[in-house]
Amino acid sequence: MSCTGGTLKPIHRLDDLCQQIKVESKRTVAVAAGQDPETIEAVARAVEENVVNAILVGKKSAIMQVTGEKNINPDLFQIVDVADPNEAAVKAVSMVSQGEADMLMKGMVKTAEFMRAILDKEMRFLPQGSLLSHVAVIQVPTYPKLLIVSDAAIVPVPTLDQTLKILEHTIEVANALGIEMPRVALISASESISTRIQSSLDAAVITSMARRNQISGAIVDGPLALDVAISKKHCRIKGVDTPVDGEADILIFPNIEAANTFYKSTALLAGAKIASLVAGTRAPVVLTSRADDDAFKFASICLAARLASKRFYEASS
Amino acid sequence: MSCTGGTLKPIHRLDDLCQQIKVESKRTVAVAAGQDPETIEAVARAVEENVVNAILVGKKSAIMQVTGEKNINPDLFQIVDVADPNEAAVKAVSMVSQGEADMLMKGMVKTAEFMRAILDKEMRFLPQGSLLSHVAVIQVPTYPKLLIVSDAAIVPVPTLDQTLKILEHTIEVANALGIEMPRVALISASESISTRIQSSLDAAVITSMARRNQISGAIVDGPLALDVAISKKHCRIKGVDTPVDGEADILIFPNIEAANTFYKSTALLAGAKIASLVAGTRAPVVLTSRADDDAFKFASICLAARLASKRFYEASS
Repeated sequence: MSCTGGTLKPIHRLDDLCQQIKVESKRTVAVAAGQDPETIEAVARAVEENVVNAILVGKKSAIMQVTGEKNINPDLFQIVDVADPNEAAVKAVSMVSQGEADMLMKGMVKTAEFMRAILDKEMRFLPQGSLLSHVAVIQVPTYPKLLIVSDAAIVPVPTLDQTLKILEHTIEVANALGIEMPRVALISASESISTRIQSSLDAAVITSMARRNQISGAIVDGPLALDVAISKKHCRIKGVDTPVDGEADILIFPNIEAANTFYKSTALLAGAKIASLVAGTRAPVVLTSRADDDAFKFASICLAARLASKRFYEASS
Repeated sequence: MSCTGGTLKPIHRLDDLCQQIKVESKRTVAVAAGQDPETIEAVARAVEENVVNAILVGKKSAIMQVTGEKNINPDLFQIVDVADPNEAAVKAVSMVSQGEADMLMKGMVKTAEFMRAILDKEMRFLPQGSLLSHVAVIQVPTYPKLLIVSDAAIVPVPTLDQTLKILEHTIEVANALGIEMPRVALISASESISTRIQSSLDAAVITSMARRNQISGAIVDGPLALDVAISKKHCRIKGVDTPVDGEADILIFPNIEAANTFYKSTALLAGAKIASLVAGTRAPVVLTSRADDDAFKFASICLAARLASKRFYEASS
């Protein structure tokens, strides 16, 4: 499956992702309450670097004040004047639902209100039976590939059904990064299946489903401890025979604490660069927070644009 | 509380721990089935570097063959000839129980058999009402302190009671490292208490217990996500007011997958050096595996010796 009509070379660094997205047909992001300086700066960079077109849905006077102060050209954006942040969130979601934009981004609106707009059934932004999940793409200097990680932020302890949906979302992201047949490690604390450890049982079940061809588009194995998922040497020393073989593209964690810990330990202790998005919706959602730096925000916009672009080409082919 | 009669300077690097232990009264390790080359080499180094006295309980002919091949002086050890590995484990545990040694180490006996000997009630090696738990001491180049982490290997999903015991064990290790009043972060995925996330509720309860002075010898706070536990900057950006304040000494994880993931991500992706031991027993236990390198085994012997030494001084003062 190609994303651009031609063959997409697998992307192993976030910088390559940000470069690559520029040469494709640009998608449009609708920014909910896009009126805070941090969001406007990140979106302005993405427009200037030819990654996206942008619609700022927010308080126009506030936007004009920020662009004036930051010396940003306001003509980079289409501006839809909605003063109230919650109303801006609703408007931005509806614009994406109606096809006026291809992706959504959170600005200066509270996460709870932003999520309320996304989850509102009347918006038809969350397909029936779908699950919202968080997907992080992590670039660690000490690992040669990107690691696609889920779920570090939304689903506390995924059920089997939820894990299958989380897995589906990460496979779509892998495909968007040009990884046609990603290797998926279902993470637990050990490779042994223990009746005392639920995550090892769930991983065993999902691995059996993959063997019965009930999961397609990925090489899936678990339970695996993190070391054998990302280190061939540890596979050898421990004598673990797994098709993931220390070369995981995707890490599915059994609970939010484990995924969040991996995300934050790589970011703070291993010099990782990260992009993330919310999946499960009709269009990719960029949901950054104040603690995220500019590089993270920009990479996240690129990632969402890449996914939106893939969907556009698939829909039109 | 002093460990050596004088004041112990807090130890912030594993190398310092290994240096410091040499100047103290040496403790004795009993090694169960201490007849494999890796174990003999690690123990020989610890004896030569003045860290411990050692009793190898194992097949004497096998021990002599290894020392011959590796050019190790067999007089470094007391050798107790027990050919069968499982019987050797029982003998080593009973020697520690009877005060002939101060710490226990696993050699070439299966973990399950080794644990069976430890848990055997007749041995009285696990005090009544005690809990076996795993304590790792992690030195990451990108963090200025040692991080004491639990439980990455034994307790799958600790109950509140189990978490309190795990906490107690880590505080004892912190004290043995000269950290009198360790800062403890109860890790969850966020600082918010969510009724949907059990780990956040458990952390909230334990934090309240600490505020009611039901936990002594530590500054305890949670739920905390990993970033605010180890980064002052993230505390500031997120506006999180916590006495841990980005300077955690101890990280208590809510489940084995999260702790194991932290352990392995720091080891493989962040260049961590690690020592570990099993706590909750009458004497510290070194339980290394084939995937552990020599530096890990040596540091783990030093850590257990440090703890055994602390207990010796406390018992005799």
